[in-house]
Amino acid sequence: MIKPLQILNQNINNQVLVELRGGRGYRGILDGYDPHMNLVLRNAEEIMGNETKRKIDIAIVRGDNVIYISP
Amino acid sequence: MIKPLQILNQNINNQVLVELRGGRGYRGILDGYDPHMNLVLRNAEEIMGNETKRKIDIAIVRGDNVIYISP
Amino acid sequence: MIKPLQILNQNINNQVLVELRGGRGYRGILDGYDPHMNLVLRNAEEIMGNETKRKIDIAIVRGDNVIYISP
Amino acid sequence: MIKPLQILNQNINNQVLVELRGGRGYRGILDGYDPHMNLVLRNAEEIMGNETKRKIDIAIVRGDNVIYISP
Amino acid sequence: MIKPLQILNQNINNQVLVELRGGRGYRGILDGYDPHMNLVLRNAEEIMGNETKRKIDIAIVRGDNVIYISP
Amino acid sequence: MIKPLQILNQNINNQVLVELRGGRGYRGILDGYDPHMNLVLRNAEEIMGNETKRKIDIAIVRGDNVIYISP
Amino acid sequence: MIKPLQILNQNINNQVLVELRGGRGYRGILDGYDPHMNLVLRNAEEIMGNETKRKIDIAIVRGDNVIYISP
Repeated sequence: MIKPLQILNQNINNQVLVELRGGRGYRGILDGYDPHMNLVLRNAEEIMGNETKRKIDIAIVRGDNVIYISP
Repeated sequence: MIKPLQILNQNINNQVLVELRGGRGYRGILDGYDPHMNLVLRNAEEIMGNETKRKIDIAIVRGDNVIYISP
Repeated sequence: MIKPLQILNQNINNQVLVELRGGRGYRGILDGYDPHMNLVLRNAEEIMGNETKRKIDIAIVRGDNVIYISP
Repeated sequence: MIKPLQILNQNINNQVLVELRGGRGYRGILDGYDPHMNLVLRNAEEIMGNETKRKIDIAIVRGDNVIYISP
Repeated sequence: MIKPLQILNQNINNQVLVELRGGRGYRGILDGYDPHMNLVLRNAEEIMGNETKRKIDIAIVRGDNVIYISP
Repeated sequence: MIKPLQILNQNINNQVLVELRGGRGYRGILDGYDPHMNLVLRNAEEIMGNETKRKIDIAIVRGDNVIYISP
Repeated sequence: MIKPLQILNQNINNQVLVELRGGRGYRGILDGYDPHMNLVLRNAEEIMGNETKRKIDIAIVRGDNVIYISP
């Protein structure tokens, strides 16, 4: 048994995919997180549908809108 | 009488189906959970309508969007 | 005067109907609940409109989406 | 000055009308409530628009969706 | 500097207008409130657009849906 | 570094513009606030699109719907 | 590992881009924040789609509506 936040902890410095409500996603290196699942992503890209919409050096992604996070 | 989180606890390492708002579902092996019903699923697949949309090794599925979970 | 959770407590092992936002309902034997009105239903069926959409052995139904519960 | 929950308390065993978001209402005898304004209604009827949609012996109506309650 | 709840307190027994999400409003004598801005209105009328839709002797109006309150 | 509530505190008795979800805004003299960003506005006007829709002597504007506040 | 609020702290006095739900964004100098991710932006501009819609000297942007913040 492993808690969701432990999975985040194990994946610091790994690439993760974050899917949000509204058809929006972010892919980037996980630099950090907090208990609300707010995330810090480095070298991130924003994905709408299947297209990369923009590149973002550092993004704080708010946990409220998360559907799932996949390392 | 059994509490919802106990059902999750009994089903660690079993396959569960999670249905979310917006016609989206996940099926996978339950690896963990927390009191907010955030879930860790292993060998998961994302389901939209009746089709498998993608395979996901590990997914943290946020509890906020859950409609029901079925072991 | 009786509190809502007491009604749930009195109906453990009885059939209940749960209506959720979005035109969705569940009918099944109440196996348990928690203070957030998350429910455990056994021998449940999912109802959309007036049709049984699927049978579910055990369902954890999240309290957030509940409109009403009727024993 | 009277607090909203006191009004509920004074109306135990009286008929109340509960209007919810989404054009839905319930009318019934108030059997109980909790601090979240979750209500227990007895001999209730569900109202959509101006029509009685169904009769419900006992209904736990979740406070989250309430717009107003009128004794 | 005056806190929002103090304004409510000063207007007990005065007429207030409450505007809610969804184009709905209530006008009535303020009989009470709680820290969630749930209100008790006496001799109230429900307003949709610019028309009085119905008269309500006592209404508990839930604070969640409030946009603004005006004494 | 200055906290959001300090900005509100510095602008007591100044005119502020409050933009809410749903294309609605309020402009008025800031008389008070609380930690939820509920605001008290004096000599306020309600703005929809670019038009003044109505004048309001005192308005308690609920913080939940706020997008931004600008002194 | 770095927490989301630490990123905000490191970027006081730097320009940040804030994207909100509903296709709305703000770009400005970060003057402050609180634990709810409410932000104070100086010399801000509001962006809808790709156009600057208005200039705002000081804006308190509520954290609730944030999708991501990028320094």
